[in-house]
Amino acid sequence: MMNNFTWHTPTKVHFGKDQVSRLGEEAAAIGCKALLAYGGGSIKRSGLYDRALALLRESGVEVVELPGIEPNPRVASANEGARLCREHGLELIIALGGGSVLDCCKLIAAAAFYDGDAWDLVEDNSLAGRTLPIIDVMTLAATGSELDNSAVISNPALNRKMPFFCDRAWPAVSILDPTYTQTVSKWQTMCGSSDIMSHIMETYFVLGSNSISDGFCETLLRTVIENTPKALANPDDYEARAEIMWASSFGCNGLLALGNTPSCWVCHGIEHELSAFYDITHGAGLAIVTPRWLRHSLNAATAPRIAHYGERVFGLAHQDDPVAGANAAIGALVSFYRGIGLPLTLQEVGIKDDAHVGEMAEHAMRFSPFDQAFAPLTLEDVRAILMDCFKEP
Amino acid sequence: MMNNFTWHTPTKVHFGKDQVSRLGEEAAAIGCKALLAYGGGSIKRSGLYDRALALLRESGVEVVELPGIEPNPRVASANEGARLCREHGLELIIALGGGSVLDCCKLIAAAAFYDGDAWDLVEDNSLAGRTLPIIDVMTLAATGSELDNSAVISNPALNRKMPFFCDRAWPAVSILDPTYTQTVSKWQTMCGSSDIMSHIMETYFVLGSNSISDGFCETLLRTVIENTPKALANPDDYEARAEIMWASSFGCNGLLALGNTPSCWVCHGIEHELSAFYDITHGAGLAIVTPRWLRHSLNAATAPRIAHYGERVFGLAHQDDPVAGANAAIGALVSFYRGIGLPLTLQEVGIKDDAHVGEMAEHAMRFSPFDQAFAPLTLEDVRAILMDCFKEP
Repeated sequence: MMNNFTWHTPTKVHFGKDQVSRLGEEAAAIGCKALLAYGGGSIKRSGLYDRALALLRESGVEVVELPGIEPNPRVASANEGARLCREHGLELIIALGGGSVLDCCKLIAAAAFYDGDAWDLVEDNSLAGRTLPIIDVMTLAATGSELDNSAVISNPALNRKMPFFCDRAWPAVSILDPTYTQTVSKWQTMCGSSDIMSHIMETYFVLGSNSISDGFCETLLRTVIENTPKALANPDDYEARAEIMWASSFGCNGLLALGNTPSCWVCHGIEHELSAFYDITHGAGLAIVTPRWLRHSLNAATAPRIAHYGERVFGLAHQDDPVAGANAAIGALVSFYRGIGLPLTLQEVGIKDDAHVGEMAEHAMRFSPFDQAFAPLTLEDVRAILMDCFKEP
Repeated sequence: MMNNFTWHTPTKVHFGKDQVSRLGEEAAAIGCKALLAYGGGSIKRSGLYDRALALLRESGVEVVELPGIEPNPRVASANEGARLCREHGLELIIALGGGSVLDCCKLIAAAAFYDGDAWDLVEDNSLAGRTLPIIDVMTLAATGSELDNSAVISNPALNRKMPFFCDRAWPAVSILDPTYTQTVSKWQTMCGSSDIMSHIMETYFVLGSNSISDGFCETLLRTVIENTPKALANPDDYEARAEIMWASSFGCNGLLALGNTPSCWVCHGIEHELSAFYDITHGAGLAIVTPRWLRHSLNAATAPRIAHYGERVFGLAHQDDPVAGANAAIGALVSFYRGIGLPLTLQEVGIKDDAHVGEMAEHAMRFSPFDQAFAPLTLEDVRAILMDCFKEP
């Protein structure tokens, strides 16, 4: 199936060793006063912070700093960044870090021109108008934010975690040096890979697709599955880190979905509630939700596709019974998660009881129309998926 | 292997049925006086010409026409187009047709700002400066010109056919409606598919690659191999035409090659000489040259990759002897070409003797450094490949 589509990926990517050396010239080509946004101290330990400051100084770019952006970035940080941009008349935003920092910067880019609470823009994306240009230097392979027009923002006061889409928030330049991901902890590495795989599976398990989309998705899933154990065994394995990082960039930018029926992003919808209520790591939550979602979605209509996925992605042998093939595929996915060390139940990430299951299920249903999903889901289905997350997969 | 790279694909693509309806608004967003370039009468027979004129008129865009661009576009047409752009102060170029029309327009876009013969820009791409923006409506799936920065231009006076690369010649907007390709003849359809496959194979058979590049190439090759017989059997098969058309767009735009060692584009280098000397159809020439090139490149070092290609692309069974596997893969490629009706020898395209073989081999060697190819080639090798093209494959 090849539905009509529009494809436009305006971001320029510099990928590879020491590509950060281009930061100064790329920034200076846009403006001379920048917001420099980052999270915790990892960019200081890795030397990226000093390097970036030196390059920007050499190119005549002044910076105002916004440190402390949270792992699940909060709207308060975006409001603070927007205030700094307005107050200092900043011309561009430089994000140093992972997807959380960049996501926050996408909202800042729009909020800098919005007179009000940045959360309004998340609640109603159409309120976003002009944006500041963004350059990012990524230190983590996970969200794919470096090559898309979306962000995920948390509002702890409301227990909400919601997407922000904005076509003017594509990064102008994304600098991806896999070397920086070599210092990422094992935990963040496995959670990053889980996030990448989830983006691809959300795109792959839809009602209608085509051979180009399917093949691209299967390729990237194989790439992550093959390289994640290598990166965990040897964190300095540049080739493994590089393949994972480049795979991550295509997770959400639309390329994989072109011509397909839309995805409902079910696992992301459900996991965002887990993160919003319990602040767990996104990739860990996805590894817990995804196998339950696939089991719950398995029926006569969907079995052949899940079985095909098992053959193409995990190299499983073809079985004449597609339901058996599909169950084997889901089993292979669970084994992969287990093999790299990811948690497989909610208890393992510290969620002890089902007190918020009903509320989370209701919120998740607002994320997108789950009745259009690969296998349509009701509120009761979502609740059942969440309850399954307490049992062994 | 993941070498450093920069990736930037600024073109906006509108893909699908009746996407031409966006032509007026997209053109008017750029300017109000356009060069309208096209080839022969096919766009008049298909109704595209009248539709485009009506849409442009409605949007207030005036046009100056450049008809008659040749199948292997000639530098004289580019000079004429550049003259019209200057004389009438045109602000953009609209290409209606196949890759040849668009290729010519890319050279016109640069030549409009160059005071001299457009051939100078082909001989020395660095002479190209500013360019006019281009919008294309493609009627043929083959060259991938709609999503890249290159063109191939012929100069009959010199018996030369050479590439023109220009980073400012990416189309601003490419409109791809597979419906238009439904009226393309069987001959042009099979030659188009051969061209697409060649672009991908030139990218795939290199000294070093990575799993993302490999998987994307294999996906697109399978897509073309599966859909071309469908499109030939039923020219109105929209899904088949759509998958071929979208596969064609990724042939040369760099996405498939990211991180790999550079390709020498050997078959294109050799085939361009055949087209330059004998004006044969590019895709037909490629189908003749490619199997001989692969046979000539088969050695202990390259056999495993050619064999792997046979397994992944043609679904051949694994053989313990990689040379046997590689020979089977080349045989499968020849069978595919034969099955869809492509010529397999130079005699079949009207080249009766080897009078120009030496000269063509010498010219081909100027195309790129064939000593860096998948299997390095000398002048004698290229001559031998050309001589093999007279024998049954």
